[in-house]
Amino acid sequence: MESGRLEAFTDGVIAVIITIMVLELKAPHEATWQALAQDGPTFFSYILSFIYVGIYWNNHHHLLHLPRVVNGKVMWSNLLFLFWLSLFPFTTNWLNEARPIPQPVPTAVYGIVLLMAALSWIPLTRTLITANGGSKGKFAKTLGNKWKETISPLIYAVAIVVAFFSPIVACVMYAVVAAIWFVPDKRIEQKVAES
Amino acid sequence: MESGRLEAFTDGVIAVIITIMVLELKAPHEATWQALAQDGPTFFSYILSFIYVGIYWNNHHHLLHLPRVVNGKVMWSNLLFLFWLSLFPFTTNWLNEARPIPQPVPTAVYGIVLLMAALSWIPLTRTLITANGGSKGKFAKTLGNKWKETISPLIYAVAIVVAFFSPIVACVMYAVVAAIWFVPDKRIEQKVAES
Amino acid sequence: MESGRLEAFTDGVIAVIITIMVLELKAPHEATWQALAQDGPTFFSYILSFIYVGIYWNNHHHLLHLPRVVNGKVMWSNLLFLFWLSLFPFTTNWLNEARPIPQPVPTAVYGIVLLMAALSWIPLTRTLITANGGSKGKFAKTLGNKWKETISPLIYAVAIVVAFFSPIVACVMYAVVAAIWFVPDKRIEQKVAES
Amino acid sequence: MESGRLEAFTDGVIAVIITIMVLELKAPHEATWQALAQDGPTFFSYILSFIYVGIYWNNHHHLLHLPRVVNGKVMWSNLLFLFWLSLFPFTTNWLNEARPIPQPVPTAVYGIVLLMAALSWIPLTRTLITANGGSKGKFAKTLGNKWKETISPLIYAVAIVVAFFSPIVACVMYAVVAAIWFVPDKRIEQKVAES
Repeated sequence: MESGRLEAFTDGVIAVIITIMVLELKAPHEATWQALAQDGPTFFSYILSFIYVGIYWNNHHHLLHLPRVVNGKVMWSNLLFLFWLSLFPFTTNWLNEARPIPQPVPTAVYGIVLLMAALSWIPLTRTLITANGGSKGKFAKTLGNKWKETISPLIYAVAIVVAFFSPIVACVMYAVVAAIWFVPDKRIEQKVAES
Repeated sequence: MESGRLEAFTDGVIAVIITIMVLELKAPHEATWQALAQDGPTFFSYILSFIYVGIYWNNHHHLLHLPRVVNGKVMWSNLLFLFWLSLFPFTTNWLNEARPIPQPVPTAVYGIVLLMAALSWIPLTRTLITANGGSKGKFAKTLGNKWKETISPLIYAVAIVVAFFSPIVACVMYAVVAAIWFVPDKRIEQKVAES
Repeated sequence: MESGRLEAFTDGVIAVIITIMVLELKAPHEATWQALAQDGPTFFSYILSFIYVGIYWNNHHHLLHLPRVVNGKVMWSNLLFLFWLSLFPFTTNWLNEARPIPQPVPTAVYGIVLLMAALSWIPLTRTLITANGGSKGKFAKTLGNKWKETISPLIYAVAIVVAFFSPIVACVMYAVVAAIWFVPDKRIEQKVAES
Repeated sequence: MESGRLEAFTDGVIAVIITIMVLELKAPHEATWQALAQDGPTFFSYILSFIYVGIYWNNHHHLLHLPRVVNGKVMWSNLLFLFWLSLFPFTTNWLNEARPIPQPVPTAVYGIVLLMAALSWIPLTRTLITANGGSKGKFAKTLGNKWKETISPLIYAVAIVVAFFSPIVACVMYAVVAAIWFVPDKRIEQKVAES
């Protein structure tokens, strides 16, 4: 099976996820800058989650640019990845409940969902590799060295622990991982250009 | 007419259904693990419904991988199927209203919508068969033996009755059907590989 | 310009419209059949609106199956049509506010939006005809006799007046128009089969 | 990389944005024309935002009709543009909170988001030009004279200041810019016709 419809469905789900988060941005009850400023932390977490969903969409775009073969296992790995992504509006919302300062448990849960989304990327790439020539095939080689995929879960894991001592520092760590990923994955882009 | 736009529309509707269910996952009012744990049954039903929608998307993907011819009857059968699928957020939500223990009527209604979605699959495959070579055509043969399609409505029907005596057991039965369907339909995948 | 992206965008908007209406189906506050039965009129209007949106999607699918040329005027006619369609969740919701019996003004407004959606179909087909060979071109001929397009606005107009005397009868008239449109437009399907 | 999936994702996000704004159109609490009339300003701002999102979709459609090459920078410029567009439901909602007369701060914030969306169009076109032959390439030439892109931010900037003295006048200015853009960009359409 070809990957066209898998991409279309994933695009649809990610488009809805990235957009419904805005529904949690409630209009301030007063028409003043102060009321808007009180929503500051909410905007920060909205922006952070928006960037994260954007990063995942970009990476998904890069990942599926090459392979064409998709089977049942790839489809379920993809749905598992979308499941964790679909929890972003929930965790973002809970993080915002306690303003102006984020609370330990919601901050940790925000990180756990980030961690699970990152880990769900592993079976997705593995099943795609298996369905597209195996670990010695062309597709596997284009993925090559994965330092970002390795370092991100580690930072998330540390940040989840840090959340119980300083939620703000944990949030900064989440932002740092986003910054690392912000630059799209040159590896595949290069390989595409070469071939 | 070709099936491309039917797939695109179906993907769009299913993407929205699977994602808006997360809007019902309200942020706990306290920033504690206990508050999150109280949402446990809600998460369970969210996961169950997510898996069900995922199963239907997978099966739709498999079903429409082959045929190309689509007519008015196929389009309306597909809309009937999407109608029942669109009620999943409603029944999931009602099931969650009564926590921590599911109540008989919402549990039965959840099963009735599952049953109707399963039954609406029958006219969808039938109209597709008629539009693509009839019951002796190539497409009909690829569908072959349908034990999952036969057993699922039966289990739903039993679970709907069981719901009035033990809602928990009925929910377990719904989960069992999901587990049966979890493995994607090998029949079509094989036939595709052969041809 | 080709019509591919116009279709994709329209599919996306219609998929969201048809699905977010389910968000208005609030879970009954009690876990009983009586509580569900009180939602009966809500379900009726949900089904009616679902069918209407389904009809418009089907007709859009038929309409754009043939032409390929799309210009700025077609795109704005299409957005005007989508605008009226986007008000369906609002009018459906207002119709449901007054249960169990629909009230005159919301019933009339429901009909006015139906009427405007039907009338917005006229500039959409006209701009498409102009962009695709004019009124003597092949595309214009495939549309041929338009008795449904003529009779629907007339019935809506009568129903809007009737709404002030008997909202129930007006709702029945809306359902009758839906029934007329339920059968997809054979004209284009035939012409496609012939060519 | 080709622009197909970028378009599909953008269409999905814009389709959700344009449709979820209708969720803010709450059903009037009474079934009377007076109650509906009190929602007048809400409808006006809904229509204005709908037209704006429609304009941006149209321009995006025109912009990406030609180029095929898309890289990481284009994708992030596009996400930045979608980010500002995603705030339209929030600013529209806040503008509506204070009825019947719009208030200074929400009116200014509405304009600021319009301004940012307009400014985010600049990196989007620039990165597209760089990826598609540079400023002397064919694509850059088709964009040519950009008086609308120049005048719009200026009017927004003035309107944001005016909002603090007369919100109504600022809203009229926003509507004027919408009117300027309403006519789709003939430049690209012509160039397409010529080539």
